[in-house]
Amino acid sequence: MPGAVKMPFLILAVDIGGTSFRLALADERGRILRRGSGPTRPEEGPERLLRRIKTKVEGLLIDSGTRAMVKGVGVGAAGPLDLESGMLLHPPNLPGWHHVPLKSMLEESLGFPVWLRNDVDLGALGEHRFGAGRGFQQLIYLALGTGIGGGVILGGQLLSGTRVSAMEAGHMVVSPGGPRCNCGREGCLEALASGTAIARRAAERLSQGERSQMLEMVNGKVERITAELVARAAREGDALARQVLQEAGEWLGIGVVNLILLFDPELVIVGGGVIGAGDFLLEPVRQAVKRWVVPYFEREVPVVRSRLGGDSNLVGAVALALDEISATTS
Amino acid sequence: MPGAVKMPFLILAVDIGGTSFRLALADERGRILRRGSGPTRPEEGPERLLRRIKTKVEGLLIDSGTRAMVKGVGVGAAGPLDLESGMLLHPPNLPGWHHVPLKSMLEESLGFPVWLRNDVDLGALGEHRFGAGRGFQQLIYLALGTGIGGGVILGGQLLSGTRVSAMEAGHMVVSPGGPRCNCGREGCLEALASGTAIARRAAERLSQGERSQMLEMVNGKVERITAELVARAAREGDALARQVLQEAGEWLGIGVVNLILLFDPELVIVGGGVIGAGDFLLEPVRQAVKRWVVPYFEREVPVVRSRLGGDSNLVGAVALALDEISATTS
Repeated sequence: MPGAVKMPFLILAVDIGGTSFRLALADERGRILRRGSGPTRPEEGPERLLRRIKTKVEGLLIDSGTRAMVKGVGVGAAGPLDLESGMLLHPPNLPGWHHVPLKSMLEESLGFPVWLRNDVDLGALGEHRFGAGRGFQQLIYLALGTGIGGGVILGGQLLSGTRVSAMEAGHMVVSPGGPRCNCGREGCLEALASGTAIARRAAERLSQGERSQMLEMVNGKVERITAELVARAAREGDALARQVLQEAGEWLGIGVVNLILLFDPELVIVGGGVIGAGDFLLEPVRQAVKRWVVPYFEREVPVVRSRLGGDSNLVGAVALALDEISATTS
Repeated sequence: MPGAVKMPFLILAVDIGGTSFRLALADERGRILRRGSGPTRPEEGPERLLRRIKTKVEGLLIDSGTRAMVKGVGVGAAGPLDLESGMLLHPPNLPGWHHVPLKSMLEESLGFPVWLRNDVDLGALGEHRFGAGRGFQQLIYLALGTGIGGGVILGGQLLSGTRVSAMEAGHMVVSPGGPRCNCGREGCLEALASGTAIARRAAERLSQGERSQMLEMVNGKVERITAELVARAAREGDALARQVLQEAGEWLGIGVVNLILLFDPELVIVGGGVIGAGDFLLEPVRQAVKRWVVPYFEREVPVVRSRLGGDSNLVGAVALALDEISATTS
């Protein structure tokens, strides 16, 4: 008799952000077959969120037979996490949540094995397995959005820390005495190169009377400036928008150079909501690498855009579950 | 018949610095049985240095029978190294040396298998196996001397990068626009908290007319100030010396906090020639960790002195060889 036929199976992925959660049902090759989403509403507490997630999951599994094919759930959430216990410690994007045992709560609610990681770690894993980092063994992934997060792949695997999720790259201090960060310190990378920082810097310069089409784009209301809007203005030729992105890119360049000197990656991938700024942001980073890393390491380290875009974390959650399943069945 | 008796064996260790090299003959438990040393004289080139090392090694192996017990040689040298080919790329402390195939040259010269790593990586490995880091799975080791180097142990193993030695912690930029570093950039950690930086800062402040017993200690010749002398003056109660170490310690604290946020270690070990400054340097680092890491990770990360002192690198070279031998025989 021949060996047992390997049955195809499915993976669920959940990405929990500060304002919304996203779901995916994916196959063994990381392809997303169905999607779902809903609001997070952190003020209502974890139990209600879990109920909303469960309802959406049931919607994805409505066909008879699909549920039986699901082997587990990969879940991403903002750190810091206690990986051993599967607990959210005090995620800044879920205010009021403290020590929520998310892994066990989700396992009980959904009835599948659950694997939990920092969302940006999952972004790194997603890009490594199915995106811009395919075929590389060592890479750094940075997600630029409201904040800055980072993930590291070394030897083809996510770098794992002792207890909490590692690589809080956004809170690397690159300019002591610089602008104040949400973490309370001054001069964190996140306070200089995140989407929040880009929007704030553009608003500051407009308030000082500098001219730019951005002002018309928000009808004179500078508080409505977002990093996405700065990126759009830059693409349309606005000089001030380009300068703001250039400056943010130079700070990001210092952060990226520091990370390369510490982790010695083959590739740096930049993703997250701000990456629409493209080369206006990445070219200064490449210049910094060319100037400070290449002469020292005697080789190029490319800095590229993420390929999965908004799906990096979700696809990474699929990859996490696939890894865990393959580790237990092989 | 019972299993074959496991024969005891010996390891040679070589630590190549910019001014001198050091040798050790050690047993399987990392204990140094015999020592040797000699001048490096980089201007004479690698061939002559290798001849001097060979002569000293022969001196250590003079007993008949000892040579037959040696299973290999662990070697440390300053980076950047190409680990795959065992080549020194362009070590700043060996000026004029470019692309020296040290591993193969030593193997040919000494007639034993040779394993080569960055000297500070070996310091980390030495402290992990036989020093202050025993029993920890994740730690960072920083060596403060002329420059600042760092090594990382994760999961009980040295972090390995793609090609060159990783963790150039001294060139992490923590103060753009700060003092110029030997690497050409401004504001590297090394330019603010190394032995060189401490001596320079003390000399600057003395030249500006500040009072201190350090001036008498060098007979008014401020160019003779060393970090060791600043440390001694601090221990003897000198206020300026203590201030200089406090400032250097605060910068070191920023670097250590950044490293903890990136690598999430259980322990930070500080060693190298400057560590005689002890708590005058380490207390500001501990304060920085208490202020910026503990609330975030919700646990303490101790910052301690190295236990092997000047032998960290040499003992680490022994540990490297032991690891490699155990990997091939098990």
